[in-house]
Amino acid sequence: MKGYLISVEGSDGSGKSTQLQNIIAYLEQKNVDLVVTREPGGTALSEAIRGLLLDARYTEMTAKTEMLLYAASRAQHIEQKIIPALEAGKVVVTDRFTDSSIAYQAYGRGLGDMVTDVNEIATGGCKPDLTIFLDLPPEQGILRKKQEQLHIMDRLELEKLAFHEKVYAGYQALLQKEPNRICRIDASQSIETVFVQIRKQLDFLLGF
Amino acid sequence: MKGYLISVEGSDGSGKSTQLQNIIAYLEQKNVDLVVTREPGGTALSEAIRGLLLDARYTEMTAKTEMLLYAASRAQHIEQKIIPALEAGKVVVTDRFTDSSIAYQAYGRGLGDMVTDVNEIATGGCKPDLTIFLDLPPEQGILRKKQEQLHIMDRLELEKLAFHEKVYAGYQALLQKEPNRICRIDASQSIETVFVQIRKQLDFLLGF
Repeated sequence: MKGYLISVEGSDGSGKSTQLQNIIAYLEQKNVDLVVTREPGGTALSEAIRGLLLDARYTEMTAKTEMLLYAASRAQHIEQKIIPALEAGKVVVTDRFTDSSIAYQAYGRGLGDMVTDVNEIATGGCKPDLTIFLDLPPEQGILRKKQEQLHIMDRLELEKLAFHEKVYAGYQALLQKEPNRICRIDASQSIETVFVQIRKQLDFLLGF
Repeated sequence: MKGYLISVEGSDGSGKSTQLQNIIAYLEQKNVDLVVTREPGGTALSEAIRGLLLDARYTEMTAKTEMLLYAASRAQHIEQKIIPALEAGKVVVTDRFTDSSIAYQAYGRGLGDMVTDVNEIATGGCKPDLTIFLDLPPEQGILRKKQEQLHIMDRLELEKLAFHEKVYAGYQALLQKEPNRICRIDASQSIETVFVQIRKQLDFLLGF
């Protein structure tokens, strides 16, 4: 019996949390033996590493350290939780996975190929069977989040926008590289329309 | 002005702590502008990562996670503390460095070449100018620590011995690979004799 690993990716304001809830509700309704998890996190140790990553005190954290901590958290998550669940035939839905590291660390932080190299080691080749990428250009995501006009954003927010544009370029590059695994969904559509398209992908993967 | 990075390596019972004290006292007496540090650790964030590595609750920690956490701690240590000190012309003495990861993770845990690959990324090529390796075969080190006979060691201690023998083989392999950087000192000699030999290396490196 073989399980399935499904990751959900998307930037701020793309509706990722809402669609994750929809996915979980749908799979539960289909009586799927489900494991819902997230990155960074998913195990006690990985959540402790998440604690370091999100701790506001560590402003001095370097880009490499950040990347290596994400990889450490992921290695533990995969070996302790994801692989055993897949081997037991379960469907694992994870809020973010390796693509986030490529987009945020390789592109956003500019670390480049070393992120792929480290993650190949961390994951041991474990890849999602399906990745739902909720595609929303960063300006739109930030507008959605702020519900205000772009022109009144301050310098820091504009810096953030530049960072999110690099991240976005990273997702587009991943999409070009692995179009069969990563399913791009236009997240500017209504919640309902987006979920109809996600559901089609789930049905196809799981044979409903 | 160029600083110097000196690492001290050695297994349990090799007298590493004692010789570190001797080295520090000697360099202070020579009025060397000194930074004393250790791995894992050396910065607030690296010490927090050390806390995870040494936390007895995380018995489920995988070998890869451990290796990536050491690398994360080292990346931060180098970028935040070691490089700035070297650029300011200081002499940095560190209790353990990358060689420990190669010996313990690549050889002891059997992770092999991936440890070198990850550490090349983590260190960005930062290597010690001099590594003092206090060489003591693991049986002797354990005997020293226990001050008791080998034949009464229990199963777990024997397992530990097998692990420490792999670590020891790792140090020997490093020594063969980089005989100019790593100075092997026979740690079965008296404390005084060992330090005379260390001092010669320090004098040669620092031009005393």
